[in-house]
Amino acid sequence: MTELKSTAITREDLLFAVRTLTRSRDAVGFAHLVKRTHPSDLVEALESASIEDTVALLLLLAAPQRAELFAHFPPARQDELLRAMPREAVVQLFEHMPSDDRADLFNRLGEEARQKLLPALAKVERDDILKLASYPEGTVGSVTTSDYVYVAPEMTVAEALAHVRATAPDKETIYVIYVLDQHFRLRGTVSLRDLLLADDKATVAEVMRRDPVFARATWPRLKAAELIRRYGLLALPVVNGGDKMIGIVTVDDAMEIEKREDASQLARFGGTAALTSAGSVDLDILNTPFKRMFGVRVFWLVVLTFFGILTSTFVAEQEELLSQVIVLAAFIAPIVDMGGNTGSQSATLVIRAMALGEVKLKWRDLWRVIRRELPVAAALGVVIALLEAVLAYFSKGVGPDVLLVVGLAMLTCTALGGIIGALLPFAARRIGTDPATLSSPLITSVMDLVGVFIYFGIAYVVMGDTLRQAAGA
Amino acid sequence: MTELKSTAITREDLLFAVRTLTRSRDAVGFAHLVKRTHPSDLVEALESASIEDTVALLLLLAAPQRAELFAHFPPARQDELLRAMPREAVVQLFEHMPSDDRADLFNRLGEEARQKLLPALAKVERDDILKLASYPEGTVGSVTTSDYVYVAPEMTVAEALAHVRATAPDKETIYVIYVLDQHFRLRGTVSLRDLLLADDKATVAEVMRRDPVFARATWPRLKAAELIRRYGLLALPVVNGGDKMIGIVTVDDAMEIEKREDASQLARFGGTAALTSAGSVDLDILNTPFKRMFGVRVFWLVVLTFFGILTSTFVAEQEELLSQVIVLAAFIAPIVDMGGNTGSQSATLVIRAMALGEVKLKWRDLWRVIRRELPVAAALGVVIALLEAVLAYFSKGVGPDVLLVVGLAMLTCTALGGIIGALLPFAARRIGTDPATLSSPLITSVMDLVGVFIYFGIAYVVMGDTLRQAAGA
Repeated sequence: MTELKSTAITREDLLFAVRTLTRSRDAVGFAHLVKRTHPSDLVEALESASIEDTVALLLLLAAPQRAELFAHFPPARQDELLRAMPREAVVQLFEHMPSDDRADLFNRLGEEARQKLLPALAKVERDDILKLASYPEGTVGSVTTSDYVYVAPEMTVAEALAHVRATAPDKETIYVIYVLDQHFRLRGTVSLRDLLLADDKATVAEVMRRDPVFARATWPRLKAAELIRRYGLLALPVVNGGDKMIGIVTVDDAMEIEKREDASQLARFGGTAALTSAGSVDLDILNTPFKRMFGVRVFWLVVLTFFGILTSTFVAEQEELLSQVIVLAAFIAPIVDMGGNTGSQSATLVIRAMALGEVKLKWRDLWRVIRRELPVAAALGVVIALLEAVLAYFSKGVGPDVLLVVGLAMLTCTALGGIIGALLPFAARRIGTDPATLSSPLITSVMDLVGVFIYFGIAYVVMGDTLRQAAGA
Repeated sequence: MTELKSTAITREDLLFAVRTLTRSRDAVGFAHLVKRTHPSDLVEALESASIEDTVALLLLLAAPQRAELFAHFPPARQDELLRAMPREAVVQLFEHMPSDDRADLFNRLGEEARQKLLPALAKVERDDILKLASYPEGTVGSVTTSDYVYVAPEMTVAEALAHVRATAPDKETIYVIYVLDQHFRLRGTVSLRDLLLADDKATVAEVMRRDPVFARATWPRLKAAELIRRYGLLALPVVNGGDKMIGIVTVDDAMEIEKREDASQLARFGGTAALTSAGSVDLDILNTPFKRMFGVRVFWLVVLTFFGILTSTFVAEQEELLSQVIVLAAFIAPIVDMGGNTGSQSATLVIRAMALGEVKLKWRDLWRVIRRELPVAAALGVVIALLEAVLAYFSKGVGPDVLLVVGLAMLTCTALGGIIGALLPFAARRIGTDPATLSSPLITSVMDLVGVFIYFGIAYVVMGDTLRQAAGA
């Protein structure tokens, strides 16, 4: 092997192989390809295949391999495939899929399909699905898998290892083993590493780590992901209301949860936060139905419109000043916008620091942030004000009084925007909402309103005499 | 135990214990606390302690425990502690810290400190540090740890397991074992699960998984994190230019890398993207020095100022129309802002979809996005235009021609903003830059410019006659 490839075969080879096998319906060939290729790559290669072809290929596999591959398709694709599969194969999927994935699939079935499916399953599977599927989307329970290894505290290390070996094939992970008493309450955890390095005759209770980090099934799933990341866990135990362990959340799911949440946070910051109660589902540009997409976005645009009305009403009231000094109108936008620009910068920097745990909701941290932002915002204000004044002079040849108004207003708006922007995430967290809900458009609109007050306020102070003179003449 | 606590002891208890031990300098007590508490919690409890007190506590511990706890402090804190520690203790840190953390620490030392440190270390450690520390910040190499387990392909499963047991205490993870030939080239990987379930007499070569996913040390570290997430890996092998394996990136580091990148992306979208070459370090509100913080932010504000100048120059040129219909000035801001608002919404929705892999840089996906955004943007435009016209009538009593201009301009800006916003992330990816670099303030400023052209264009078309009449009179 002279060159290392990053996957079993190249993407082009994989696409070619998939197309060939689709035509030939070669069961042995496909099973071999599945063995050599990571499910994520296979699913990607099958993106452009038709539903019928994909189902035909899936049916070439044995039920366990089929279920493993099926679980890697995106949810929307899974639903399409399911509708085209024979009933027998659907039941087999529910028998062999990982417990968290099949609970999700179950929740996406219509009521009728669910009623038809349940009687065909063994009681153990039916109970498992119903239990995991009962947790609402967005909770820890909805991402929990019941395929974990557990032992009793009084077992010896040797017995525990034997149990791990025996039950391993069906488990999501065997590297963290959970120690439960006879009531299924979590007494501790022990890693496979600890078991392997311990004395065979020691008991599990002597080796285990007590008081493990855990999550409750009703907590938001993001909390589970944060715990996993904070403590560097491979898996996190999940308990129900009665403190009985029901399953685990694994680190790979935690990575997906955080990725999804961070991507959605960016979209919320763009002005698409959905303010519905309990388990709000974030907007998805390809999948969210028109009605909801329109509804959430128009809500914010209406809010922003009202802010805009306030701003424009105020500006219109300054007709007298504007008719005297028409050119003042030309600077409204650049000056009030700059407040939103610096505010957007500082707000996102603070949100970033909060996400990384560097800044918390404490007065001490708020003070640290302001102490750092103040000089920067002031310096930015001075530089941008000078720049704007210079450009205004050379491009429009405005008089010194207008230059002064423009410069002072720009300085104030820029610096104030930075300070206000830095404070907004604290305010949002204080009222218990994600800082990104105070979106960039909202920050900009608020700073627009603040900005016009500042602008015209300064204009009246500086040019008030001019105005009175002109009115008197 | 009637109630499960989520950590060994509560946060208040931990703070109290830490303060007590700081005063009493009780070595046994502190070692016991360290054993019972997760390092992340201990580090958090020590946040408010002074450097001197923290160093005193650390020196109570044996060198290996001290190094493990030290590695969990944030980098800035590590640097402060290091300066206050006796030389002997510093050398011990470098002997016992995980290899990736100590390489990072080494890179933060000044040149003089490095030259003083290296001779005090054993050759093996010196070579390891120098090798890992040679990779620039932001690369896979910079987050690689050399504490991994490797075996030869011809070993038996029993021999491999014995080797794992023997070397386990020093390894970051023993759950993925790497199969290297005598030239340290990666032949395959085998999980501890596979080893435990395999026949003792089989060879590693028979059990291992060939063609493993890997990363090169020079790749961006984000690529390693993406591979780990995509393939659900516990660890990813890293090879150097000569295809020799140099270490691994573990899943907990991958989670941190992605978290940091996503948090930074939000800040870039707020207008703080640093356009320096190779390995640009993102702005950090608490840690970035004034000069750089000011420099990056003022760059964007200057760019935005120039956009603003273009816009305001154009508006000023319309003095004739504005002097005739002063009230038109009042609507400039709300109308042009709306383009930026819808644009911000659609741009972030597309960036989110790209981050989740739902949308790729393909014409097909661009078409899918536009097909979904078009009706939404049009509907938003109609609703907001009607709202603005109604509000304009009732708040200012403007005439029908102004209402028409305002309504049409609002409709066009709103809808066009949504479409342009949806296209921008594709444009950014096409030229090879992160879409978030096209920040919200930039989108807004571009839409401002587009918006004033639309606004006054429509105004001239609708009110052109009025203007000519007034000029003629």
